[in-house]
Amino acid sequence: MAKKRHRPPLTENKLYTQEFYHQPGTLPGTIIIDENAPPPIIFLFDYDQTDVIYKQLNTPEECAVYIEKESVSWVDVQGLGNADILQRLSQVFDLHPLVLEDMVNVPERPKIEDYEGQLLIIARMVVLKERTFGFHSEQVSFVLAKNYLLTVQEEPEHDCLHGVRARISHNKGIIRKQGADYLAYTLLDAIIDGFFPVLESYGERLEELEEEVMVNPNRQTLQKIYQIRRELLQLRRAIWPQRDVINALIRDGYEPISEEVRIYLRDCYDHAVQVMDMVETYRELASGLMDVYLSAVSNKMNEIMKVLTVVSTIFIPLTFIAGVYGMNFERMPELKFYWGYPICLAAMAAIAVGLLFFFWRRGWLENSSTIKPD
Amino acid sequence: MAKKRHRPPLTENKLYTQEFYHQPGTLPGTIIIDENAPPPIIFLFDYDQTDVIYKQLNTPEECAVYIEKESVSWVDVQGLGNADILQRLSQVFDLHPLVLEDMVNVPERPKIEDYEGQLLIIARMVVLKERTFGFHSEQVSFVLAKNYLLTVQEEPEHDCLHGVRARISHNKGIIRKQGADYLAYTLLDAIIDGFFPVLESYGERLEELEEEVMVNPNRQTLQKIYQIRRELLQLRRAIWPQRDVINALIRDGYEPISEEVRIYLRDCYDHAVQVMDMVETYRELASGLMDVYLSAVSNKMNEIMKVLTVVSTIFIPLTFIAGVYGMNFERMPELKFYWGYPICLAAMAAIAVGLLFFFWRRGWLENSSTIKPD
Amino acid sequence: MAKKRHRPPLTENKLYTQEFYHQPGTLPGTIIIDENAPPPIIFLFDYDQTDVIYKQLNTPEECAVYIEKESVSWVDVQGLGNADILQRLSQVFDLHPLVLEDMVNVPERPKIEDYEGQLLIIARMVVLKERTFGFHSEQVSFVLAKNYLLTVQEEPEHDCLHGVRARISHNKGIIRKQGADYLAYTLLDAIIDGFFPVLESYGERLEELEEEVMVNPNRQTLQKIYQIRRELLQLRRAIWPQRDVINALIRDGYEPISEEVRIYLRDCYDHAVQVMDMVETYRELASGLMDVYLSAVSNKMNEIMKVLTVVSTIFIPLTFIAGVYGMNFERMPELKFYWGYPICLAAMAAIAVGLLFFFWRRGWLENSSTIKPD
Amino acid sequence: MAKKRHRPPLTENKLYTQEFYHQPGTLPGTIIIDENAPPPIIFLFDYDQTDVIYKQLNTPEECAVYIEKESVSWVDVQGLGNADILQRLSQVFDLHPLVLEDMVNVPERPKIEDYEGQLLIIARMVVLKERTFGFHSEQVSFVLAKNYLLTVQEEPEHDCLHGVRARISHNKGIIRKQGADYLAYTLLDAIIDGFFPVLESYGERLEELEEEVMVNPNRQTLQKIYQIRRELLQLRRAIWPQRDVINALIRDGYEPISEEVRIYLRDCYDHAVQVMDMVETYRELASGLMDVYLSAVSNKMNEIMKVLTVVSTIFIPLTFIAGVYGMNFERMPELKFYWGYPICLAAMAAIAVGLLFFFWRRGWLENSSTIKPD
Amino acid sequence: MAKKRHRPPLTENKLYTQEFYHQPGTLPGTIIIDENAPPPIIFLFDYDQTDVIYKQLNTPEECAVYIEKESVSWVDVQGLGNADILQRLSQVFDLHPLVLEDMVNVPERPKIEDYEGQLLIIARMVVLKERTFGFHSEQVSFVLAKNYLLTVQEEPEHDCLHGVRARISHNKGIIRKQGADYLAYTLLDAIIDGFFPVLESYGERLEELEEEVMVNPNRQTLQKIYQIRRELLQLRRAIWPQRDVINALIRDGYEPISEEVRIYLRDCYDHAVQVMDMVETYRELASGLMDVYLSAVSNKMNEIMKVLTVVSTIFIPLTFIAGVYGMNFERMPELKFYWGYPICLAAMAAIAVGLLFFFWRRGWLENSSTIKPD
Repeated sequence: MAKKRHRPPLTENKLYTQEFYHQPGTLPGTIIIDENAPPPIIFLFDYDQTDVIYKQLNTPEECAVYIEKESVSWVDVQGLGNADILQRLSQVFDLHPLVLEDMVNVPERPKIEDYEGQLLIIARMVVLKERTFGFHSEQVSFVLAKNYLLTVQEEPEHDCLHGVRARISHNKGIIRKQGADYLAYTLLDAIIDGFFPVLESYGERLEELEEEVMVNPNRQTLQKIYQIRRELLQLRRAIWPQRDVINALIRDGYEPISEEVRIYLRDCYDHAVQVMDMVETYRELASGLMDVYLSAVSNKMNEIMKVLTVVSTIFIPLTFIAGVYGMNFERMPELKFYWGYPICLAAMAAIAVGLLFFFWRRGWLENSSTIKPD
Repeated sequence: MAKKRHRPPLTENKLYTQEFYHQPGTLPGTIIIDENAPPPIIFLFDYDQTDVIYKQLNTPEECAVYIEKESVSWVDVQGLGNADILQRLSQVFDLHPLVLEDMVNVPERPKIEDYEGQLLIIARMVVLKERTFGFHSEQVSFVLAKNYLLTVQEEPEHDCLHGVRARISHNKGIIRKQGADYLAYTLLDAIIDGFFPVLESYGERLEELEEEVMVNPNRQTLQKIYQIRRELLQLRRAIWPQRDVINALIRDGYEPISEEVRIYLRDCYDHAVQVMDMVETYRELASGLMDVYLSAVSNKMNEIMKVLTVVSTIFIPLTFIAGVYGMNFERMPELKFYWGYPICLAAMAAIAVGLLFFFWRRGWLENSSTIKPD
Repeated sequence: MAKKRHRPPLTENKLYTQEFYHQPGTLPGTIIIDENAPPPIIFLFDYDQTDVIYKQLNTPEECAVYIEKESVSWVDVQGLGNADILQRLSQVFDLHPLVLEDMVNVPERPKIEDYEGQLLIIARMVVLKERTFGFHSEQVSFVLAKNYLLTVQEEPEHDCLHGVRARISHNKGIIRKQGADYLAYTLLDAIIDGFFPVLESYGERLEELEEEVMVNPNRQTLQKIYQIRRELLQLRRAIWPQRDVINALIRDGYEPISEEVRIYLRDCYDHAVQVMDMVETYRELASGLMDVYLSAVSNKMNEIMKVLTVVSTIFIPLTFIAGVYGMNFERMPELKFYWGYPICLAAMAAIAVGLLFFFWRRGWLENSSTIKPD
Repeated sequence: MAKKRHRPPLTENKLYTQEFYHQPGTLPGTIIIDENAPPPIIFLFDYDQTDVIYKQLNTPEECAVYIEKESVSWVDVQGLGNADILQRLSQVFDLHPLVLEDMVNVPERPKIEDYEGQLLIIARMVVLKERTFGFHSEQVSFVLAKNYLLTVQEEPEHDCLHGVRARISHNKGIIRKQGADYLAYTLLDAIIDGFFPVLESYGERLEELEEEVMVNPNRQTLQKIYQIRRELLQLRRAIWPQRDVINALIRDGYEPISEEVRIYLRDCYDHAVQVMDMVETYRELASGLMDVYLSAVSNKMNEIMKVLTVVSTIFIPLTFIAGVYGMNFERMPELKFYWGYPICLAAMAAIAVGLLFFFWRRGWLENSSTIKPD
Repeated sequence: MAKKRHRPPLTENKLYTQEFYHQPGTLPGTIIIDENAPPPIIFLFDYDQTDVIYKQLNTPEECAVYIEKESVSWVDVQGLGNADILQRLSQVFDLHPLVLEDMVNVPERPKIEDYEGQLLIIARMVVLKERTFGFHSEQVSFVLAKNYLLTVQEEPEHDCLHGVRARISHNKGIIRKQGADYLAYTLLDAIIDGFFPVLESYGERLEELEEEVMVNPNRQTLQKIYQIRRELLQLRRAIWPQRDVINALIRDGYEPISEEVRIYLRDCYDHAVQVMDMVETYRELASGLMDVYLSAVSNKMNEIMKVLTVVSTIFIPLTFIAGVYGMNFERMPELKFYWGYPICLAAMAAIAVGLLFFFWRRGWLENSSTIKPD
C-alpha cells in the first residue's frame, strides 16, 4: 500500500510543495513514501511525577508496553522514509488508515480531527535556517490519547522542542505532574513560539530593504522584495490554520483536553494571533515597499532625464550658432567684423548662463537623489 | 423539448463558457443539445461484496433492472449529444425535470440539491492537457439514491476516474463492502485530487515565469502572466463552490450519506480547502509577478536612458567645441597657434574623462541589468 | 400628490441614475412623474387550466372584476407617464402608499417587502441593445397576491418576457396549472436569464479588448476598458440585491409562495449566483486588462526609446569626429595625409559597426513589439 | 463643567474633524463649548390632530409644560454655543450626563443608545453647498420619548428639514395623526434623502472628470480626483453607521417605536442602503479614474517621445552626412565632382523619406492623442 | 525564573517590537527582564467616599493591608526592571503565573482574560512625543478584582492618566462613590481618549503631505508617506484588539463589572470605534497619496521631456541646415548668391516659428507644473 517517491531536500524553501499528491482515484489511506526521506527514528519518553524513562526504540512494537501504562508516554517518531515501520507503528497505536495517510503524505494543512479516543492534530513547525535566509518548514503530527502522545516529524534535524525535552528530564515546572494533554499543549506552544525568531529575521530583512529601497534601489532589491512576499505568503499559509486548530482545542471540548490545560491553550492562542498579526503587518509593509520601489525607480529616471535635458538644452542651441558661422556663404558680413568672434563667444556664454539660470529656478540643478537622514 | 446548439470543442480553455444559456422565458426543464457533442455512451457497474458486473449498455432502459436490485449500481453516462437518450434515461431514473436540465445545460455551478430520495450533486472535473498548457474542464453530475449512483459526464475522454473503476473491478480496499454513498465519495475524492496535477503544472509555470520576469522580461511574459491569472480565475470558480458542496454533504445530514462516509468526506473536504488555498496563493503570486514585471520594464527603460544620456552628455559638448573651431570668422587667433589643435584635442579628452568620472561616481556605468543568481 | 419631472431617454447607459430623488422632507408615498415617460399601457392575462383571456385594458378599473375571480390574473402595466392612471390603479389594488412610491420613483434597489397579503418585489431587468454596445436597464415591480400578479414596467419596449406570454397563450409546460406564485417565479426567472445574453456580449468585448491591448494598445483601448468596468459595476449593482431577493423568497416563507414553487426558485437562485460569479470574473479580467494596458504602454515607450537611443548613440560620436575634422586650425596634419579621408571614413564605419554589435548583444535591435500568437 | 473651545467655521469641508476631543482623563459627561459656535435657538412644535403650536422659546424651562402634555412636542435646538442653556435643557429633559456629552461634543459617530424611556439617536446631516463644491456636514442628535422629541443641531443654518415643518404646519399627510416616533422617522428620512442631492453633484463632477481625464489630463485633474476620493470617504463615514442605526431601530424593538412606524423605517433603510451603494460605486469609479489618469499621463509621454524620436532620428544622420562633407581633408574627391552637391542632397532626401516611411509603417506619425467621441 | 534582556529605549518608534519573545519550549510563566528597563515604582491610591490615601510604597508587601480593606485600592506599578519585586508583587496579589508573564513580557496583544475573581486586561497606551513626530507606545496591564485594581505600566514617564489621579484626589465627579470597576473604566477611557491627540497630529501631517505632494514632490515626500503608513499600521494594531476588549467587557458579563459601569463602557466603546474609523480613513488617505505621488512624478517627467523635445526639435533641423551650407563642395551655387545668407537665416527663423506654433497648438509651451490654488 506504500509507494516510493523522490523528494527534493527539505532545506529548499519551496512554496510549491504539493508535489506528492495522491494520484486521483487512489485508495484512501494509501501512503506515499519519499525514497530520499530519512528513515524513522523512534524516541520514547515515559514519565510520571517520580520517574522518567528516555530512550531510543529499535522497533515500533516496543512502544506497546508503555502506552498501556498509567504513566504519560510520549513516542516521538522522526523521519518518514520507511513504509514498513510506519505501518507497524500504525498497528501498535491502532490508527485509522486516514490518520496514517495524513501523517505521512506531507504536506497536509494544519487541522484537528477526532477519532473516538484519539485526537489527530496536524501542525506545522518552522525553524530558522542557520547561515542563510529563509526557514525550514516541517509537519508535526500529534495523536493524543488519554495516556500517551504520539508525534511524527518529517525529519530528525531542525527541531524546536529541545526545551520541552529538558523540562521533562529535569522536572522543571509542572510538566511531570500533568497528563498527556499538557504535554501536547507544551509542544504546540513551543511550535508557535518557534515562529517568533523567524518573524524577527523577516523584521530585520524588511528594515534593511527599506534602507536599500530608499538609498540605492536596484534590481536585486526587486528580487528580494518579491522573495520576502513569497516567503511571508508561505508563513501565512502555515499560521492561519494553526490558529484555528488551537481555537478548536479551546472551544470544542475535545475529550482528552482537561479544563486546566484549556487555560494554558488560551495563552498559546494569543501567541498564534500575535504571529498572524505580525505576518499580516509584514506583508503590508512588503507590499508598501514595492510601491516605494516603483516610485524610486521613477525618481531615478527623472534624475537621468534631467541631466540629459539640461546638457542637451544648453549645448544644442550653442552648436547651432557655431554651425551658422561655419557656413560657407560668400557674403557673411559678421565673419569679417574685428570683434565678430569674441562677440559670438560672449553671446554663447550669455545663452548658456541664461539657460542655467532657468534650470536653477526650476530646481533641476539640485541633486535630489541624495537623501539626508531625518 | 430539446434544442440543438453548436459547441466549440471542449479542448479550448475558454473562460466565457456561458454561451449556452436559456433564452430568457423558456420553460424550466428545457434542455439544450449541442449538435457537435459526442453521443452518450452508458456504462454500468453493478457490484456487491461478492460479484461485480461491468458492461456497456445500449439503451437507457437496460438500467432499470439493476437499479431495482439491492446491490450497488453505478450508471455512468458519457456524452451529452442525444436528447432522446437523455430523456429516456430521465424517465428510467424518474428525474425531476430541473435535474435533467442541470445535467445537460452545462456549465452549471457546482451545487447540491435534495429531491426526495435523490440527491443531485453537480461537480466540476479538471484534467491536465497532455501536450500543451492548460486543462480540460468538464461537468460531472451525480444523482445519488440508496442503491444506485447515476453520473453524467460531458464527454467520454479526459476522465480521472480510472483508479476508482480499477478498485471496484479488483476489489481493492473497502469499496465493494460499502454502499452507493461511499462510491459517490470515492468519485468526488478522485475529482478533487484531480486538481493537484493541474495545480502542480501552474506551480511550475509560475516558477518559469519568475525566472523570465527577472532575467529577460518581454511582451510574451506579459501575455503569459495574464493568461495564468485568467486560468487561475477559472480554477477558482471551479473549486470554491465544490468545497461548499462537500461541506454541505458533511454537515447538512442528507439522508443517503451514512455516518461512516461522512468521516471520509472530511478528508476530501480538507483536500478541497488545500486546493483553494493553493489557487489563492498562486493568484497572489501571479499578481505579484505583474508588479515585478512593471518594475522590470521601468528598470529596462532606465538602462536605455542611461546609455543615451551618457553618450549624449559626453559628445554634445565636444561637438560644440568642434563646431566653434569650425566657424569661419576671420580673426580667430587660436586657429593660428602652433599647438592649437593638440591643445583643443587635449581639452576635449579632459572633458570626456571628467564626465566619465562624474557618471562613474553616480554608478551609471555599471551594467545593473545583469542579475547574478543568489 | 404627483410631481412632474424631465427624464432623459432610457436608451442612454447612465450609471448616475439617481437624478429623480425625493426632495428631502417630502411626504412618504409622494410619486414623481417624469413628463417624457411613456404613458402606461395595461395588459391583462386571466387564465386557468382551461381558458385564457389576453387583452389590453383602457382603464385601471377594468381590472377589478378579474382580480376578484379564482383564476390567475396578471395585470402588466408598461409605462410610468401618467400619475392619475397610476393612482387609480393603486386604489383598485388597494396598495400601500409606499408600494406605489417604490413602483413609480424609479430606480429603486431590488428588494422584497411584505404588506399583509401582498408581496412587493422590486426587480431590475436588463436587455441587450441591438445595434450598439451596452444594455437597457429597467425596473420591474411585482405585487403578488393569492390570485393575481401586478407587474409594473418602466416602458413598453425592451422586454424579455415574450417567452412567458407565449407559454401562457399556447399552454406550454405546467404554467396554466399553477398559481400566481408560479407566474411570478417564471417572470423572475426570465429576468435573471435575461442577464446571460448581456454577459455574453461583455465576454466577447473583453476578448476583443484582450487582443487589442496585446497587439495595438491605443487611447481608445483605455476608454473602452474604463467603459466596460463602469458598465460591469452597473450590472453588479443590479444583480447583487436581486440574488438576495430570490434567496429571501426561498428561505423566509412568505405566504403567497407555495412549497413547490420554492423548488423552482432554487434553480433561479443558482442562475442568479452564476450571473454574479460571471460579473465578478469579468470585473477581475477588466481590471487585469488595465494592468496589462499600463505595461503595454510602458513597453511601447521602451521601443521608442530604444530607436532613439540606438540612432543617437551611433551618430552622435560620428558627427563629433566629422566636426573635429571640420575645424579650421592651421596645423592639422591628418588633413594633409593622402589616406586621411578614407581612414577617417573607415574609422567611422568601425565605430558604427562596433556600436551596432554592442546593441545587438543587448538585444535592442530585435523588434519585440510584434507578438507571435502562441 | 463646560470648557471653551475655538472652532473653525463649519463651511470648510474638513475631514480631520476630530479636533475637539476630550483631554484624556477628563470626567465623563464633560461638555466642551466652542466659543465661536452660534448660541442655541430653541423652537417648539406642539401638535395633535386638531391643533398646532409653533414658536421660538426664550428659555429651556419653557419646554417643561409642553413635554408633560399628551400632545406631541418637538423641541428643536439649533446651535451649541452656550453651556449654561444646554445644561438647563438637560435638566428639563432629565438627560443622562453622557447624553448631553454626546450631543455637544461633536462630531460623534452616528449611533443609537437606550436610556430607560429615552432613546438617543445620533445622526449626521449633509447639505449641498450653494456656490462651490462640497457639502456641509452637521450632527443632529435626537432624544425620543413617548410624547416628545428633542433634536439638537450644530447650527441654525443649512438644514434639510423644512419640508417636515411644512407638513406639520399645513397638516399634510398623516404626520399630525401620529406620535413622536413617526416624527423621528420623518426627520431621519429627510436626513437620509438629503444625501441624494449631494451624491448627484458628485455624479456630475465624476462625469466631468471622466471627460477631462480622457481629453485633457493635467495636474488639476489629479488634485480633483484626490479631492473627490477624500470627500467620498467622508460621506462613507457618515452613511455607514447611519444605516446601522436605522437597521437597529427596525430590528431591536426599542420601546418608543411603534410597529407601524417600523414599516416606514424599512423604506428609509432601503434609501440608506441605496446611498451606501452609490457612495461605494462612486469610490470605485474615482479610483478607476486614477488608473486612467496614470495611463493617460503615460500616453502623453509616449506622444512627446515619439515627436522627439522621429525628429532626432531623421535629422541626426543627415547632420552627420553634412558634417562629413564639411571636413577639411585635402583629398576628398566627392567635393570636386560636378554633381556632388545635388547627389548629396538627393541622398539626404532619400534617407529622410525612407525613415519617414519606416515611422509611418510603425504608426508613429498618427496623432493618437486626439480622441474622437464614440 | 526571570531572565535578563537588553532593551532599546522605548522612545524609538519601532514596529518590529517582538524582539523579546520566549525561546520556544520555555516554561509557561517564565518572565524576561530587560536590564535597561526602569525599576518598578509602586504608587497606591486607597479611597472611599470620605477619605483618600495617596502614597508611594517601598515594598510590594505594603499593599497587602490595603487590598484587604473594603475601600477601593489602586496599586499602580510603573517600570518592569526588577524581577524580584515583580514576583513578590505577584505573590501579594496571588496572581496566576500566566498573568505575571503577560504583564512583564511586553508587548502582549490587548486582550481580556478571566482568572476566577481576577480579571486580566491588557491595554496599550499611546502618548504623543513632544518635540518630534511619532508616539510612545506602552503596555498597561490591569488586574481587576472586587476591591482593588492593580495596574502595571512599562515605565514611569509618558502617561495620560493624570486627569484620573486629579479626579480622585479632588473628588471630582462620581469616581469616589464608585468601585474599582468604575476606576478601571475611567483609566481605559483615558487610554482610548489618549489616541485622539496622536491621531490629530497624523491628520496635520497628512495635510502637510498633501500640500507637498501636489506642489513639490521629492524623495523625502516618498519617505514620509511610507513612514506614516507604517506608523498608522502600528496604531491600527494597537486599537483593533482594544476595541474587542471593551466590547467583551460590555457584552460578556464579567463578574467584577457592574451594570452601571457597562453603560459608561458603551461610551468608551464608541470612542474606540471612532479611533479605528479614523485610523482606517487616514490609511486610505495615505495610500491615496502614494498614487498621487506616483502621478506627480510622472507629470514632472512629462515636463522635463517636453522641454527636451521642444528644444531639440527646434534646433536639430536648423543645425542640419547650417551643416548643409557648411559643406565644402566646390559647386554650391547658393553660397554665391548675394542674398544667400540672409535668405538662409530667414528660412531658419521661419522653421523655428512654425515649430513653435505647432508646439503652442499642442499646448506644450504652457507651464502646467505650477498649480493655482482652487
